[in-house]
Amino acid sequence: MVIAEKNNKEKLKASRDEILEKIKRTGEKLIKEIDKGDNPALEIPVRGSRNVEFDEKNKKLVLGDKIAHRYLFNVGHAKKFMQTMLVASYVKKDLLENNLTATLRDLYYAKKRTIAGTKEETIEEQKESDLAIVDFEVSLDTFREKLHLRAEPKGRIAGDMVVTDRVRDKVDSIDLSRMGSGGWAVPSIVEQIEFKDVGAEYVLVAEKNALFDRLNEDEYWKKNKCMVMTTAGQAARGARRFLQRLNEELGLPVYILTDADPYGWYIYSTMKYGSMALAHESDRLGCPNAHFIGMSISDIEHYDLRSVTIKAKDVDIKRAEEMKEYEWFKSKPWQVEINKFLEKKIKAEIQALSSKSLQYVSNTYLPEKIANKDFLP
Amino acid sequence: MVIAEKNNKEKLKASRDEILEKIKRTGEKLIKEIDKGDNPALEIPVRGSRNVEFDEKNKKLVLGDKIAHRYLFNVGHAKKFMQTMLVASYVKKDLLENNLTATLRDLYYAKKRTIAGTKEETIEEQKESDLAIVDFEVSLDTFREKLHLRAEPKGRIAGDMVVTDRVRDKVDSIDLSRMGSGGWAVPSIVEQIEFKDVGAEYVLVAEKNALFDRLNEDEYWKKNKCMVMTTAGQAARGARRFLQRLNEELGLPVYILTDADPYGWYIYSTMKYGSMALAHESDRLGCPNAHFIGMSISDIEHYDLRSVTIKAKDVDIKRAEEMKEYEWFKSKPWQVEINKFLEKKIKAEIQALSSKSLQYVSNTYLPEKIANKDFLP
Repeated sequence: MVIAEKNNKEKLKASRDEILEKIKRTGEKLIKEIDKGDNPALEIPVRGSRNVEFDEKNKKLVLGDKIAHRYLFNVGHAKKFMQTMLVASYVKKDLLENNLTATLRDLYYAKKRTIAGTKEETIEEQKESDLAIVDFEVSLDTFREKLHLRAEPKGRIAGDMVVTDRVRDKVDSIDLSRMGSGGWAVPSIVEQIEFKDVGAEYVLVAEKNALFDRLNEDEYWKKNKCMVMTTAGQAARGARRFLQRLNEELGLPVYILTDADPYGWYIYSTMKYGSMALAHESDRLGCPNAHFIGMSISDIEHYDLRSVTIKAKDVDIKRAEEMKEYEWFKSKPWQVEINKFLEKKIKAEIQALSSKSLQYVSNTYLPEKIANKDFLP
Repeated sequence: MVIAEKNNKEKLKASRDEILEKIKRTGEKLIKEIDKGDNPALEIPVRGSRNVEFDEKNKKLVLGDKIAHRYLFNVGHAKKFMQTMLVASYVKKDLLENNLTATLRDLYYAKKRTIAGTKEETIEEQKESDLAIVDFEVSLDTFREKLHLRAEPKGRIAGDMVVTDRVRDKVDSIDLSRMGSGGWAVPSIVEQIEFKDVGAEYVLVAEKNALFDRLNEDEYWKKNKCMVMTTAGQAARGARRFLQRLNEELGLPVYILTDADPYGWYIYSTMKYGSMALAHESDRLGCPNAHFIGMSISDIEHYDLRSVTIKAKDVDIKRAEEMKEYEWFKSKPWQVEINKFLEKKIKAEIQALSSKSLQYVSNTYLPEKIANKDFLP
């Protein structure tokens, strides 16, 4: 354990050093260009839908190869150039060199000021520094957690596993099978977490907090040798990355449980493939092997839930029609699912199963689904 | 420990039995009325602003003594009467007798059906059963957690304390000083939690997740012998009740940290006094001894944060003008605070302190505030 922790500490330091080295090289390149009398430029991969592709083989949304150059001596680029430099300086000097983490908002406040002798602000609004951060991430080919930038954390987990987590030099061993009714709160940065004593054989992710509480009270994870996690709605970055690590590093299958509606499918697809807005980070946040365990539109009939369905709204129909065209929903089973929804125009919440009995989801629905491998891809 | 847990188990069973007995008595009263040929009636304290008072002595929003009668044989009451009976039956038979918990939505789905021989639904929309639950709570003079009804949980905690939590017969001992960077997720029901090994001397509650992460990374709770908790915005019921228990049972002072704006004051006042909508539950959810540690409008000057303030919006001004008239903001220091805001028309986020330095809040601002007892009441 002591050796493992020493190794982890060194691994984390090596990761910081690698980023520091990349930042240094970027700086040196710019200085060289200035010394030569060139117009210094940053190379930044283009984001946005015109440079986002679906990588069929790896099943991820990824950035294409379009690159933009941002020049210091260009009226349209100069301010953004400066903002990217402010981000670089903050990440290097305030965060990585001190081994501290901060939020995007901390960075904004730290670097916002009036430029001496002018009425110009370095950063007017936070969205400017946020964009500069994304630019900086993609130009370094990394992701913000490695730059020690935290996002809003969300999600809870419990199950048959011990993890160690590190806060600077303090290392805690956390037994996720002993988290009471609360569960362990999944942090915003999970790079430092190590997996120990893994008894779990799969991960069940519930979109809803209420389902986590249900499954935890029913000791579902104990009876079924698994982890139970909730994302409490759309999954936060920390939860997505944690899930990816559980899947890729431990080889645990991941099953995702949402409401039977287009919003549920969207939550699922974001965890699985990444999102358009964050296509540059699918590699670090996506979980392409995840399965959709339910609730499916077919379940409504199969489990006789017709009387507790909800009429689909126009916005649901519209969303479903759009999703039907997405490349990553083109598989036969998903087309059948979406068509069934468009035909019946009904949706259902996962809690509709409570109409059968409170523990039906834990004792019947999920075990049946898993035994029959009744998943959508 | 074993004896304490046995006692706790018995205490929890006694609490369930007490509610079961109350439900039984209510049922017997109704049956007696029916047998006598009377019109059976439920007595339900009136909620809503016309029956909400500010209890000056105990510093809580409370219900007045207006009582409404709900009759079975009254066209306007009959459906609500039936819905309250459905709630009573679910709470008694499905939850308390099985020692299970459920959400308001589970109850809705479990009791929603078409009444035989009619096209009438027992419950059309969830808000109907939600109202019936509140009626039932106040008529039994209890709160929904004691009825084993869960709300959406939110909030994380860490610090110098061990708690035990119980999920049915499983008892976990949770060391809140060993929760890594995530913290322990505060559950929706906290009645079963017992406090052990309390090293903490006060509780610091940050409205914002980001502040929890900052303070946890800086080991604030370790250096300052305290608990650090975040409510992640407006506090959930579980977090409010947990805070009350920390304050009243352990005698720990509670300091609340929000943005310097009317929304922050509102979050504070809900934790402290309860809310209008939940006045019937202030006794169980309020924390009248809590102090507002910041950020105050005076702090903006004192800590030289003028350059990182935000112009107040019309809605902020309007909200502040309303709050100025609330009885529970009538104390001199709050009137000064609100007037200062109305005069300057600026607000500030707590993260504005990051403009000084990342760890300023942990190393300077909070220790100074606490040493100087620089609080608002």
